[in-house]
Amino acid sequence: MSNYDLVIKNANVLTSSDNYTADIGIKDGKIVEIASSIDGDNVYDAGGKYVIPGGIDVHTHMDMPFGGTFSSDDFETGTKAAAIGGTTAIIDYAVQPQGKSLNETIEIWSQKAEGKAVIDYGFHLGVTKLNDQTREELPVLLKNGFPTFKVFMVYDGMRLTDKELLEILQIAKDHDGLVCVHAENYDSINYNINKLLNDGKTEPLYHAISRPQKCEAEATNRAVKLAEMLDAPIYIVHVSNQEAADVIAKSRKNGFKTMGETCPQYLLLSIENYKEENFNGAKYVMSPPLRDGFNNELLWQSLRLGKLQTVATDHCPFFMEQKRMGIDNFTKIPNGAPGVEPRMALIYNYGVNEGKISLGKFVELTSTNPAKIFGMYPKKGTIAVNSDADLVVFDPNKEVTLSVDNLHENVDYTPYEGYKVKGYPVATFSRGELIAENGEYVGKDSRGQLLKREKPEVL
Amino acid sequence: MSNYDLVIKNANVLTSSDNYTADIGIKDGKIVEIASSIDGDNVYDAGGKYVIPGGIDVHTHMDMPFGGTFSSDDFETGTKAAAIGGTTAIIDYAVQPQGKSLNETIEIWSQKAEGKAVIDYGFHLGVTKLNDQTREELPVLLKNGFPTFKVFMVYDGMRLTDKELLEILQIAKDHDGLVCVHAENYDSINYNINKLLNDGKTEPLYHAISRPQKCEAEATNRAVKLAEMLDAPIYIVHVSNQEAADVIAKSRKNGFKTMGETCPQYLLLSIENYKEENFNGAKYVMSPPLRDGFNNELLWQSLRLGKLQTVATDHCPFFMEQKRMGIDNFTKIPNGAPGVEPRMALIYNYGVNEGKISLGKFVELTSTNPAKIFGMYPKKGTIAVNSDADLVVFDPNKEVTLSVDNLHENVDYTPYEGYKVKGYPVATFSRGELIAENGEYVGKDSRGQLLKREKPEVL
Amino acid sequence: MSNYDLVIKNANVLTSSDNYTADIGIKDGKIVEIASSIDGDNVYDAGGKYVIPGGIDVHTHMDMPFGGTFSSDDFETGTKAAAIGGTTAIIDYAVQPQGKSLNETIEIWSQKAEGKAVIDYGFHLGVTKLNDQTREELPVLLKNGFPTFKVFMVYDGMRLTDKELLEILQIAKDHDGLVCVHAENYDSINYNINKLLNDGKTEPLYHAISRPQKCEAEATNRAVKLAEMLDAPIYIVHVSNQEAADVIAKSRKNGFKTMGETCPQYLLLSIENYKEENFNGAKYVMSPPLRDGFNNELLWQSLRLGKLQTVATDHCPFFMEQKRMGIDNFTKIPNGAPGVEPRMALIYNYGVNEGKISLGKFVELTSTNPAKIFGMYPKKGTIAVNSDADLVVFDPNKEVTLSVDNLHENVDYTPYEGYKVKGYPVATFSRGELIAENGEYVGKDSRGQLLKREKPEVL
Amino acid sequence: MSNYDLVIKNANVLTSSDNYTADIGIKDGKIVEIASSIDGDNVYDAGGKYVIPGGIDVHTHMDMPFGGTFSSDDFETGTKAAAIGGTTAIIDYAVQPQGKSLNETIEIWSQKAEGKAVIDYGFHLGVTKLNDQTREELPVLLKNGFPTFKVFMVYDGMRLTDKELLEILQIAKDHDGLVCVHAENYDSINYNINKLLNDGKTEPLYHAISRPQKCEAEATNRAVKLAEMLDAPIYIVHVSNQEAADVIAKSRKNGFKTMGETCPQYLLLSIENYKEENFNGAKYVMSPPLRDGFNNELLWQSLRLGKLQTVATDHCPFFMEQKRMGIDNFTKIPNGAPGVEPRMALIYNYGVNEGKISLGKFVELTSTNPAKIFGMYPKKGTIAVNSDADLVVFDPNKEVTLSVDNLHENVDYTPYEGYKVKGYPVATFSRGELIAENGEYVGKDSRGQLLKREKPEVL
Repeated sequence: MSNYDLVIKNANVLTSSDNYTADIGIKDGKIVEIASSIDGDNVYDAGGKYVIPGGIDVHTHMDMPFGGTFSSDDFETGTKAAAIGGTTAIIDYAVQPQGKSLNETIEIWSQKAEGKAVIDYGFHLGVTKLNDQTREELPVLLKNGFPTFKVFMVYDGMRLTDKELLEILQIAKDHDGLVCVHAENYDSINYNINKLLNDGKTEPLYHAISRPQKCEAEATNRAVKLAEMLDAPIYIVHVSNQEAADVIAKSRKNGFKTMGETCPQYLLLSIENYKEENFNGAKYVMSPPLRDGFNNELLWQSLRLGKLQTVATDHCPFFMEQKRMGIDNFTKIPNGAPGVEPRMALIYNYGVNEGKISLGKFVELTSTNPAKIFGMYPKKGTIAVNSDADLVVFDPNKEVTLSVDNLHENVDYTPYEGYKVKGYPVATFSRGELIAENGEYVGKDSRGQLLKREKPEVL
Repeated sequence: MSNYDLVIKNANVLTSSDNYTADIGIKDGKIVEIASSIDGDNVYDAGGKYVIPGGIDVHTHMDMPFGGTFSSDDFETGTKAAAIGGTTAIIDYAVQPQGKSLNETIEIWSQKAEGKAVIDYGFHLGVTKLNDQTREELPVLLKNGFPTFKVFMVYDGMRLTDKELLEILQIAKDHDGLVCVHAENYDSINYNINKLLNDGKTEPLYHAISRPQKCEAEATNRAVKLAEMLDAPIYIVHVSNQEAADVIAKSRKNGFKTMGETCPQYLLLSIENYKEENFNGAKYVMSPPLRDGFNNELLWQSLRLGKLQTVATDHCPFFMEQKRMGIDNFTKIPNGAPGVEPRMALIYNYGVNEGKISLGKFVELTSTNPAKIFGMYPKKGTIAVNSDADLVVFDPNKEVTLSVDNLHENVDYTPYEGYKVKGYPVATFSRGELIAENGEYVGKDSRGQLLKREKPEVL
Repeated sequence: MSNYDLVIKNANVLTSSDNYTADIGIKDGKIVEIASSIDGDNVYDAGGKYVIPGGIDVHTHMDMPFGGTFSSDDFETGTKAAAIGGTTAIIDYAVQPQGKSLNETIEIWSQKAEGKAVIDYGFHLGVTKLNDQTREELPVLLKNGFPTFKVFMVYDGMRLTDKELLEILQIAKDHDGLVCVHAENYDSINYNINKLLNDGKTEPLYHAISRPQKCEAEATNRAVKLAEMLDAPIYIVHVSNQEAADVIAKSRKNGFKTMGETCPQYLLLSIENYKEENFNGAKYVMSPPLRDGFNNELLWQSLRLGKLQTVATDHCPFFMEQKRMGIDNFTKIPNGAPGVEPRMALIYNYGVNEGKISLGKFVELTSTNPAKIFGMYPKKGTIAVNSDADLVVFDPNKEVTLSVDNLHENVDYTPYEGYKVKGYPVATFSRGELIAENGEYVGKDSRGQLLKREKPEVL
Repeated sequence: MSNYDLVIKNANVLTSSDNYTADIGIKDGKIVEIASSIDGDNVYDAGGKYVIPGGIDVHTHMDMPFGGTFSSDDFETGTKAAAIGGTTAIIDYAVQPQGKSLNETIEIWSQKAEGKAVIDYGFHLGVTKLNDQTREELPVLLKNGFPTFKVFMVYDGMRLTDKELLEILQIAKDHDGLVCVHAENYDSINYNINKLLNDGKTEPLYHAISRPQKCEAEATNRAVKLAEMLDAPIYIVHVSNQEAADVIAKSRKNGFKTMGETCPQYLLLSIENYKEENFNGAKYVMSPPLRDGFNNELLWQSLRLGKLQTVATDHCPFFMEQKRMGIDNFTKIPNGAPGVEPRMALIYNYGVNEGKISLGKFVELTSTNPAKIFGMYPKKGTIAVNSDADLVVFDPNKEVTLSVDNLHENVDYTPYEGYKVKGYPVATFSRGELIAENGEYVGKDSRGQLLKREKPEVL
């Protein structure tokens, strides 16, 4: 009997710093051996293809209520699509409903995920109310596997004041936690929306006009300065443009514990997309919105230079039928778009193939840094002895034209329709089990586990 | 009979760009002639000394209510001190009391000034309430001689929200006005004050600790970004540190209509002053507070490079007895310090003599730019035909050791006690009348006039 | 009999800082009075048009030998064209011929100018040989009216080594002089020329390819760092691109005495011009060459922000017949293009009218700063009592379509053919004499005087 | 019989991105297995201490002729000291003597190293003459294991012109090589030396004065711009100050293939050291010299932010007796100082312990990046299957006070005398052999091998 449950042979192992050939021995869901040659009963021959740490998408919204509807991927459809796309863990935002405690929030989100998710998942707590109860709950939760949470600077009923943000940054700092911030300036958005709607400007494009780049850059700077005042770590989610990215870069240069995430849509799409006819611009309605195209290149540069640390997706799909709630008023369009499935292929193709980032940076941005920042490393995020065998065989030569027809997200469009990529995941292993292969989910149902995460690392 | 009421002979005329020798003929309060030689019945021989445009201090608080008391210079004592120090016009902040309209505010402040002021004065309206009444009043006032107003981002009962700030920036833009902003982050100050007082930290130094540099830099950035969104002009008052100055510089570089002011205290003093014993640190309690000393040099650099446009004083003196209201609690110390009198000499000595700025820049910062930005040019701010004969004879060789004993501000200390300067005003003319000479006020009483100002110029 | 030889009435006087209405009284070639109203026998009514200080072009090459031919404007044709275009003084580069002393060089150039020039002129000495003789001559010349000289980092037989540049910077510093530097990297140009000619690339475009932006940026940085080492003032001529301009800006920010000049061609034209067919690209062959178009806007920004101090022309025209020397080899095309005449109108129209610079900045860049930096102020460069009456009446409403047909430079093309400008000089006075009016030279011949200049001012 | 020649058990494995616990199986000098548990006959128990990739010092000068003497470490003493200090590979500069070909140069240096070196070594060719012979040799050598070479911009008889530098950059680019540049401005150093010696300034301090920071910053910029023109990779050795580091950072930001190295002396020492009495300042005479202390912190920042890529030593020791050649003239002091032995401990203690860099960055700077940039990866520079078993057991708790008495470099002083470090190598393995332990060399003699290196990686 073999010592291994599975041996992956002939792997071109890629980590964020290494690139070498080896066999990988797996036992009980973990990597137990990496060697020049390993024999086993159950062998997967990688045939010299890349084997990378499973992707980690630290920004998803599965089954999320928004404006009277729910994002269309639940934890089953969403994590299956993720798995097929080479992602083996997600962190979803569990946003505190009005009137609920944080523990109740976890309960609600756990019910959404349990029995459905097929890959491992964690929750960022979305704190929308800072009261005595949450002040009591937070330190406990921070120590018990939920070390990161999110606050919103916008959205009625969700947003915190600067004072609350300060307080929560201090709580996080005191208990080794990390605050993730959705940074937009609330007042200016409302100001713009009123003006635009009064002027009869209701089309999807005006969503972008109502939330200009400077409104994000302002709020990013505000959140970062508040964190700097306390010397507290902070992580800015979905940075959409260079003006905001520069705020983060400058803070890091000055030695502060500031980090930032961007998403494929901000690297590849632009405000021009909102002009697509027949309400198709609604496909791209998300917050922050897509920006002027020159930002794409500058955000790639920020990734290359280490000024931003992760690429997540903000996956939050809605069917066009749902989007149509805002046919007469852009503010009624559910915010969000799909992306959890094609992330790895998009970043590889448009990043590595086009010379914008190195192979190691690709792994770092999509897996290693997310694992480290969000307290999952070294369990997740690398290929090393004792780590979970979350592995993806990635064929650098496989060519795919992305389409809603070959993606598995539960939604009737993809923002990347017709995008041609070279380099695609061909097999996904989660804790040593082959769960996706050649574009199909082949694993068991409901196998995903809730991640109890450790102390975030400041990168 | 001479054609002139007064001829100033042998003047080394300095403007912000020029430096030449001439005689100046004055009639009816105005310069009517500049020539190589002019004769007249009434001659003041400048003897080759510098003759500069009278200083303009665009940030004063005379007779201002603050925390249950009033700043100790009224319009008489304050403008006499100004005149002696070489300043021939001030713009005072007329801050709207709760429940009063803007027109009533002007009325109140006019009563403070009329019959008292000895030099010309204008009012920035301090808008503390944006309601239907003020929305109606503002456009009218903007067109009728009050083209600049001020908003506060801090102070209970005075501060505006971001949304109100946006609205007022738009009103100003639409009616050729200019908004001056006191930029500090309200929430973080309150957060800090609570923490400090809870910790029993009540001394003057904690005033500075409670309002750190980043709290100003944040608010400066916020105000500037809001103005940028509207492409509206904005002027940041009393910039105390380089982090805030850099926000302004960057905005200007990007082509926005952003301007900034600093004050002698931020160029010459530092947070170390708060540590003076026996509650003497209270002398320097003002907002924003004094900063780490390295900022001094960087602010001079900003002036030299044109990144900041003016040097005003934020003159707002309180007797030590008044300051003692906060002996047990720094938040009760009236905010403010004197400075209207020594401004010209301080900037000349520490700027020009020490090689930080040129002669022309000295005139530009203290007179020409203030006049242009605040709609007084070319009536004020230069030495040219048809301009008011607001002139100062400045002796570059006169040495003075500044002291509460030789200054004329109505207060029992000066932050610049013992500062030795070389270069001092020896005669001040306002609209052609000699009103101060060799450290004494020699003019008539109550001669100051309210300035109806024109459209601000964006520099 | 009037006290004045001439009175200019109803002038909208513009200086680099002022803008007011007055009459100007002139006597013996100098401004003797500026007043609200002056009467005289000889009156020119400016009718409310702008009256500005006469333009000063500190970079011309009249009658200059280059590659076996001479630039086609001599001091007569060139200065007449200048006068018509609103320029009342030039500084020409008197470049030391091999084997000649500096005194001989002045003699040679004086012979070119005397009896020909119709406006005042100075010489920058172009030092091409640093030997014992020149080491002796320089301090004497520096003190005797030739306080600025030029060195080349390129051109065989003219260029100095870094060591010689250091030495000459030190000499200038020791004797209150200023070194002007033509900054390009010699070795890389030769390297590129060899490669291009070997590849049969001989067309005018390859002139630009052979001298890329980085070759100028490198040499600019080198010259600036050498000056910084000695804390010596330095002036970089004809800055063509932002990468070089940034070097100067950074040096200035750090407090060094570094200044820079750009020219209309770098603000308005681009490398695309070299692609004009039928050898017309040769019109633009000059060094440094025209650059990628994005630099235009960035150079305007540098002017606006005070990062560059002057706009000169590098006027050095050649007829197309002369240019044809290089029909088979771009290195044989005489370097240079005309520009001395339209400079004022181009900078006014594309700068002021298009909102890139203010009225005051227009005067500053074209007259006041050149006068100050090159030791002519306050004799030249402003409108003030005791200054030379070098004045230009500039009609902001006059529209002209620039063409070789209406320009007076002695050359058969203009790089600005077809450019429409609004704002044009309508009368030019030199030392109080009307010498040009409405596009015609109306003054006496040979009236120009050699300028003995004073100590340069570091701006 | 075990499958392994050696098993290192209980290793806390550190790579530039990973940190985990495992056993390491070694066979035939290579890592063949990393696993959670491995048994073997020959076991070294790391006891949970860090096991890191052996240090790689890519800048050493063993047995190097300089000014009539030789650096005092030959390949035996120098590599033994390196091994004790945790370094398992060096790249030494084989500098072409006048009149010798490059192949002869390799021959000469191979004779120095063979039979002496105890760790693996490579040679950078120091090209001092670019003639037809070297033009022929270079492409061959580049392809045959010598892919990197060095050029000097200073030193008579060694320096290349800008044109030669361009040519050699192009050759390197064409043949997948990398040029390392010693960047200082030759002319200004000579200029300064003449002046200083004329003034009788002969002490060691004047060595630093004669080669000021700007002279390095200038040359760095020149070399970088030349490389940018060709889009060729370039590596600047021994960057001593932030002004030069910023040149590299800016080039990288703009997407060019520019890299830089610094050394412990520039991170820890300063120009103040030259003032040590009794000619002790001579200990620090090296080129570039030590700089103003504020650079230390800024260079650490550059390392943290990825602006510089490696930390080497420029190890080049001379006994004080040798240094005394320059007792009367600083230019006669042999340039260089020891450092190959304490590098790892210094960077760990002052970098990691003091919070300046992360653990991963420590490994990256001292081993992984050097291996990648210089064509040794993945054979060297990481801990991965199939890599050479060049491993160092590093005890983070071992405290050592550095002293010439406990270091093994063949020289009578260390610049780091008395420096206390916590964290020290306790065992060094080279290709699986234990060669140093607890401060003693315990390996065989003459065991080092010449490294045939592959294509450099641009980081």
